[in-house]
Amino acid sequence: MDPLGPAPELDLTADVVALTRALVDTPSESGEEARLADAVESALRALPHLTVTRVGHSVVARTELGHPERVLVAGHLDTVPAAGNLPSRLDGALLHGLGACDMKGGVAVALRLAATVPEPAARDITYVFYECEEVEGDRNGLGRIAAERPELLTAGLAILMEPSDAGVEAGCQGVLTADITVRGERAHTARAWRGVNAAHRAGAVLQRLADHVPERVVIDGLEYREGLNAVAVRAGVAGNVVPDECVITVNARFAPSRSAAEAQAYVRGLFPEDAYEVEVTETVPGALPGLGQEAVASLVGVLGATPRPKLGWTDVARFASLGVPALNYGPGDPVLAHTAGEYVPVAQLRECETRLRAWLGAGRDGSDRTSE
Amino acid sequence: MDPLGPAPELDLTADVVALTRALVDTPSESGEEARLADAVESALRALPHLTVTRVGHSVVARTELGHPERVLVAGHLDTVPAAGNLPSRLDGALLHGLGACDMKGGVAVALRLAATVPEPAARDITYVFYECEEVEGDRNGLGRIAAERPELLTAGLAILMEPSDAGVEAGCQGVLTADITVRGERAHTARAWRGVNAAHRAGAVLQRLADHVPERVVIDGLEYREGLNAVAVRAGVAGNVVPDECVITVNARFAPSRSAAEAQAYVRGLFPEDAYEVEVTETVPGALPGLGQEAVASLVGVLGATPRPKLGWTDVARFASLGVPALNYGPGDPVLAHTAGEYVPVAQLRECETRLRAWLGAGRDGSDRTSE
Repeated sequence: MDPLGPAPELDLTADVVALTRALVDTPSESGEEARLADAVESALRALPHLTVTRVGHSVVARTELGHPERVLVAGHLDTVPAAGNLPSRLDGALLHGLGACDMKGGVAVALRLAATVPEPAARDITYVFYECEEVEGDRNGLGRIAAERPELLTAGLAILMEPSDAGVEAGCQGVLTADITVRGERAHTARAWRGVNAAHRAGAVLQRLADHVPERVVIDGLEYREGLNAVAVRAGVAGNVVPDECVITVNARFAPSRSAAEAQAYVRGLFPEDAYEVEVTETVPGALPGLGQEAVASLVGVLGATPRPKLGWTDVARFASLGVPALNYGPGDPVLAHTAGEYVPVAQLRECETRLRAWLGAGRDGSDRTSE
Repeated sequence: MDPLGPAPELDLTADVVALTRALVDTPSESGEEARLADAVESALRALPHLTVTRVGHSVVARTELGHPERVLVAGHLDTVPAAGNLPSRLDGALLHGLGACDMKGGVAVALRLAATVPEPAARDITYVFYECEEVEGDRNGLGRIAAERPELLTAGLAILMEPSDAGVEAGCQGVLTADITVRGERAHTARAWRGVNAAHRAGAVLQRLADHVPERVVIDGLEYREGLNAVAVRAGVAGNVVPDECVITVNARFAPSRSAAEAQAYVRGLFPEDAYEVEVTETVPGALPGLGQEAVASLVGVLGATPRPKLGWTDVARFASLGVPALNYGPGDPVLAHTAGEYVPVAQLRECETRLRAWLGAGRDGSDRTSE
């Protein structure tokens, strides 16, 4: 039994703000999405126009009208850990709470579309609500679907509802994670000169990271701003022991014009000394903005937004690697993602829902087949 | 019931090597001394010339012959955690195993003396075998006895059987533990420039520790070599978050001529910037060597050893604060304490036993009243 009780019922006919609040108030930190996935699955199965498939704690729902084109709308169900920002709180025009921005607001928009666009006129739609986006890539629910049920991800264009301030954010940067291990030699602290303090030696590594000036790379007119950060430092054997090891975990963000191999060489090149062991634990390439691709250009035109570069990594890159053109378009300021004070503007929730419904519901002749 | 079964029987008439092995082979990591304390208590209660008192998992045994002087012989029963170094192993002249050096060899010598010097000629003897020396000071068994039964610790001189290579190590250095907290501001690593990386800022603190040259302080002709070490570094929120806090735990060893307040001021003075929060979590003053004190000088003379400075902290400092002159004298190289390869030389076990028995057993006229 889930200690939190059964999954709540989600009312997809409710206003997008109420629905976002219901999603925020159903905690779903990465790895703990079961209850929210149950709720989403149950609500979608109640809709006769959708064919629903569950893969792990991810849910896929498809219209199957036989249209020659298909568009995919996706959002992840998980959030980073809570930071005193539950339950949700509506403060005038802003809805606060864990995941309001990243990305339960976007998920709510997608769920509303799933419920209210029963007969898209020009393209079939695949909705994907997936688990474990905020953690190691090998747990990513979209990756699991791609491995187990790749046919479910077939589409001519993917729209990721990641927070992008209700604008189009194109492409995304790549991510590299590495552990830099600094070694020393243990000794009792009362006779520290017999050892070598690995934590002290790590000071130079951290200082080098502090001094590093990341590059800015311009592609298709968009500026991708790279980054290189220690995200964890671990050293310590016992209170009276000189530590013989200090591990610094580094998270690098690199422009989509760099390949994974180039990114690895770049980071390794910053720490060429034998004194440091650099182990790259994960490299996920980014995605080029691809503004020249027809499917992307068409949606960008319809949404009437000027594309910006996506600086964070998103599953746009995963779709790129699957050969599916993709972009980010969703409510919420991406800068607020992963902050305790994250919120989503109510107006952006409504704007994203309205614009996407208009595009999805309109036939090629412009007629509207949505239910609202 | 203790899952290891009842306490083993200790044969105090056995050779000191066999007794040390029996002690090593009765695990007693700090907090888990009950079984060994039971064995020690039981063996001592079988000796009619001793009055035995149990305090927690510490055992005090006293001769009460009415001598005007009293000497205290003490050793702690606990060890640091095992490191693949059990059971004991006799390798020629060296006895290996967890605690062989720190300090079951010394405890074995003291137990042998308790059994074989029934009628000390010149001074009554108090033996103290105590718990929790290797952990936080507020758990220390000697501290508990001092709080609950201070009269049991009354003595003109205390000999701590701590490993000192069968030589006299006088006084001891003090210990200061502090947490240095470096703060920053969280941000998503894709937009790291919006935050401040606390781990990067901590590089300067670690570098300062690396550059620090500890002082050497000479007292009574003995050189105390100070130390200042990061023993732990902790930072990390999540793999894609710029950490807003990095905590460096520092362990300082300071010469006994510095008071606790002076040691604190010294460490704080190294990090005067507002950017660093220095919280001193524990300060335990050292003990001056006190070689000029009559009781210490007399024993040093009898043992025929040239005193050396004790660099580690020992309960000598606790006795000093109780007004009892004290020194370290025991088998085993202190450098081996807390190492997986610790051992005690058999020759040192025998030498310490023989010399102390001669001193304790001899009357002021030199007659020998020991049972061997």
